[in-house]
Amino acid sequence: MFRKVLYPTDLSAVSKKALRCLLEMKGSGVEEVVLLQVIAQSEAESISEHHQYLFAGLHLETPGRGEAEFLKSVHQAQEEDARKGLTPLESSLKEAGFKVKTRVERGVPKLLILQIEQEENVDAIILGSHGVSNLKEMLLGSVSEYVIRHGKKPVIVVKR
Amino acid sequence: MFRKVLYPTDLSAVSKKALRCLLEMKGSGVEEVVLLQVIAQSEAESISEHHQYLFAGLHLETPGRGEAEFLKSVHQAQEEDARKGLTPLESSLKEAGFKVKTRVERGVPKLLILQIEQEENVDAIILGSHGVSNLKEMLLGSVSEYVIRHGKKPVIVVKR
Repeated sequence: MFRKVLYPTDLSAVSKKALRCLLEMKGSGVEEVVLLQVIAQSEAESISEHHQYLFAGLHLETPGRGEAEFLKSVHQAQEEDARKGLTPLESSLKEAGFKVKTRVERGVPKLLILQIEQEENVDAIILGSHGVSNLKEMLLGSVSEYVIRHGKKPVIVVKR
Repeated sequence: MFRKVLYPTDLSAVSKKALRCLLEMKGSGVEEVVLLQVIAQSEAESISEHHQYLFAGLHLETPGRGEAEFLKSVHQAQEEDARKGLTPLESSLKEAGFKVKTRVERGVPKLLILQIEQEENVDAIILGSHGVSNLKEMLLGSVSEYVIRHGKKPVIVVKR
């Protein structure tokens, strides 16, 4: 049924509850987990970076060497941090016997989750009902809601 | 993990897709299914009936014998229809080896689903993303959305 599951996490408490849920699903047909963390960029930032690349490509405007290097080093540090944060989750999943593919991506979380749902051809998505940035009062976080609405495959929503 | 699952259905196409999903979950730890159909009453109807009972209790107003009998026979016919509609689903689940408890209830679907989640102490709810009454254009049906927001246990949302 759910052989390959996408598990996007932002390391929030409820997303760790989703991990426990996933660990208990071992032996229930789940064999492979795509562990995903998205380094969040707003849509505006994504578009702006995309434009910067376009302009650079057209030689209309290129960021100074120092500026570009600095941005690159910030991004690298963010990615290393994300991978470090995911290491214990990856270990738990591997110890439980899952095949694990870890991905750290940069972009708009809700859009990337749906893009990777397609790319990885997963059978289901498991996620917490809320992200770290959601208010306590909210009944459902905005990323989770978007993924439930727009995803193609079954979504397992783990509540706070 | 998900030993006992609540499966509310309105016999819509997507809720039957949820059934296929559930059938494939046999052998994955799911042992018991609470199969639920709610004969939908609006909140206003529920309140109005409740008031009627209250008034009857207070001897302020009692419906005529004929009227009450008629209402009772309509309700009975609705319940028999619902049970008939559920029979093939119940059979599929039993044939697959699940223990099945079938419930036909009358009330506000979204509220009854949450009430029965508690009463039956299920481990998860599986449901289709839309009901029969939802427009094609909607990305998520109103009952499903309510259950995802207010349910306590993980909700498996099967998409159209």
